[in-house]
Amino acid sequence: MNTFEFKNPTKIIFGKDTIKNIENEIPNDAKVLMLYGGGSIKKNGIYDQVKAALSSFDVLEFGGIPANPEYAVLMQALKVIKDENITYLLAVGGGSVIDGTKFLSSAALFDGDTPWDILTDKIRTEKGMPFGTVLTLPATGSEMNSGAVITREETKEKLAMGGPGLFPEFSVLDPQVIASIPKRQLANGITDAFSHVLEQYMTYPIGALLQDRFAESILQTLIEVAPKVIKDPTEYTSAANFMWSCTMALNGLIQKGVPTDWAVHAMGHELTALYGIDHARTLAIIFPSHYKFNFEAKKEKLAQYAERVWNVTEGNTDDKAYAAIEKTEAFFQSLEIDTKLSEYTKDYEGTAEEISKRFTDRGWLGLGEHQDLSPEKVEKIVKMAY
Amino acid sequence: MNTFEFKNPTKIIFGKDTIKNIENEIPNDAKVLMLYGGGSIKKNGIYDQVKAALSSFDVLEFGGIPANPEYAVLMQALKVIKDENITYLLAVGGGSVIDGTKFLSSAALFDGDTPWDILTDKIRTEKGMPFGTVLTLPATGSEMNSGAVITREETKEKLAMGGPGLFPEFSVLDPQVIASIPKRQLANGITDAFSHVLEQYMTYPIGALLQDRFAESILQTLIEVAPKVIKDPTEYTSAANFMWSCTMALNGLIQKGVPTDWAVHAMGHELTALYGIDHARTLAIIFPSHYKFNFEAKKEKLAQYAERVWNVTEGNTDDKAYAAIEKTEAFFQSLEIDTKLSEYTKDYEGTAEEISKRFTDRGWLGLGEHQDLSPEKVEKIVKMAY
Repeated sequence: MNTFEFKNPTKIIFGKDTIKNIENEIPNDAKVLMLYGGGSIKKNGIYDQVKAALSSFDVLEFGGIPANPEYAVLMQALKVIKDENITYLLAVGGGSVIDGTKFLSSAALFDGDTPWDILTDKIRTEKGMPFGTVLTLPATGSEMNSGAVITREETKEKLAMGGPGLFPEFSVLDPQVIASIPKRQLANGITDAFSHVLEQYMTYPIGALLQDRFAESILQTLIEVAPKVIKDPTEYTSAANFMWSCTMALNGLIQKGVPTDWAVHAMGHELTALYGIDHARTLAIIFPSHYKFNFEAKKEKLAQYAERVWNVTEGNTDDKAYAAIEKTEAFFQSLEIDTKLSEYTKDYEGTAEEISKRFTDRGWLGLGEHQDLSPEKVEKIVKMAY
Repeated sequence: MNTFEFKNPTKIIFGKDTIKNIENEIPNDAKVLMLYGGGSIKKNGIYDQVKAALSSFDVLEFGGIPANPEYAVLMQALKVIKDENITYLLAVGGGSVIDGTKFLSSAALFDGDTPWDILTDKIRTEKGMPFGTVLTLPATGSEMNSGAVITREETKEKLAMGGPGLFPEFSVLDPQVIASIPKRQLANGITDAFSHVLEQYMTYPIGALLQDRFAESILQTLIEVAPKVIKDPTEYTSAANFMWSCTMALNGLIQKGVPTDWAVHAMGHELTALYGIDHARTLAIIFPSHYKFNFEAKKEKLAQYAERVWNVTEGNTDDKAYAAIEKTEAFFQSLEIDTKLSEYTKDYEGTAEEISKRFTDRGWLGLGEHQDLSPEKVEKIVKMAY
């Protein structure tokens, strides 16, 4: 097991009808900016619940934060924060709204030239404007971690930021919000959370017995509840387990003391950039090829995953490892998520070369848990995913 | 799944040679009181490592905090804190030293009549003097939670305290400390952590799928590493997994959203009070009887535990549940921990009646996850444990 540090100060408020509790979490004298996305919260009742909980506060609103939170839009919100002397931010949404709010938390207290520097200069945010979240779409885990990804259309960039100052002070997780999420989004959320676990787990054995079992626990739970959540998102128990699994998948706990991969995310991001494919679906496209290409390096963990998560008992290590890849691909497909690039675009020729070139240009010469995944290898993996 | 809140702000610093890192965690201008127990840290090198890490600080020491931290001793430490204007506490020890330090953290800022009121009046500590810990004995989980148990010899009382102000700011977990722990203490630590999980898990199914699997993960890991740690406590990987499992067993995570029992601890505490039996061993005495007596109420979870943790595949629910009890008892015995009261004292007659009477006198009329474990039932359970 590797040496590690772990600290996660976010307060989770989990359960039925808990949105009203935000009233007790925000300082009485706060001037609050409530941030949200395209407005679905006005249809499903969440907006009304939040407004009721905030009735005794001085509150302004900023709606319209898009999926892949866009810098230009966020800069408009930042102007409101400064002009109106906002002191507390409340994100009401999924990963994009929460990530955008994290950027604003950092930018509000940033004293450099332009807030974009936070992303390009990889400035670690030690202290941000305090903020809380009301989660409306389980998937990214952003409600209990300190990272964010921000997009800038103008320069076609998608960059990450973070730091200990960017943990939400609180996050409200009411599984009842899942009832109104469209099936496609639910499938994406399940796939996203499942992928987060795989990136932190599917590397090589390092004797982190408890972290492995926790990762397997999340995978098993997602597999168990996925068909139920898709079939009936109003069924509370499955919704609750789905929601808590998504949070635990990327709140830092399971990655402590172990190597991590994240190469699938790096490749997947490019498929979103090139073709606008939903983030989760890009991961489902890349995983099978990535695991087949890196079979020797990952087969021990793949076999362990086959045995413990998929109950594969037959065959030797190679057989089990291969079965694990097939089971994983079939799981994504069971969520009606296609796992080949050609199922999303007819125009896929040259994609592998383009992504490989981009990685080379950025100096990304060795991704993955062994830092040995070169742009040449990336090209082969993406080609296998056609 | 029940509604819950979860917040745990303690920073964990885990791994080889991490004691030196405490230098970066304590404010430069702090006046530190270093607290420890009977002095074993002076023999195993931990004392020297801590002193070296604190070389640039103004540090006083207070040694001699006993197992079951004693109020009278702690009051002497409190006098030092006040007389010397201490601003930061550093516990170097196991659960007793850390619990004692939590009491001091609270008492140092307490403005009531006498600090004992914190315990008798069940005063929740919202803010304490900041403190960190260097864990020398994995077992209680006190290094990552906000609870403490304090003993007062004068009045034969053993009372609990806690509150959000009593999380350690940081805890250093260097698994190398395990190398010098005597076998008896290692067996106690394993049993204590195992018991913590059982108290939070062995109740009834409530659809908390992930919490159940996390609990089972800790149990499986403790079972896997126990013989290795006992055989060779210098073997790092097993020591690290043992240490992290003990912390995760009682840092709040697995109890969120589920019913908990804790009746075994209540009965066990009395066996310590009456006969001075090590805390962990009292739990091993009570568990089998408790589970047999409450078989109908607990058999579904007992059977799940049998299947998932002990790989019991034969028989019906009752058969599996019964096998689980036998496996658990055999596990404790494999650690050379006796599971009958008569193996600890010849003078056990009347114990059950005495404990039952104590519970009645205290008004403890309904313990356990169903609040239906009466003093009459307690009497029967303890008698079964003779």
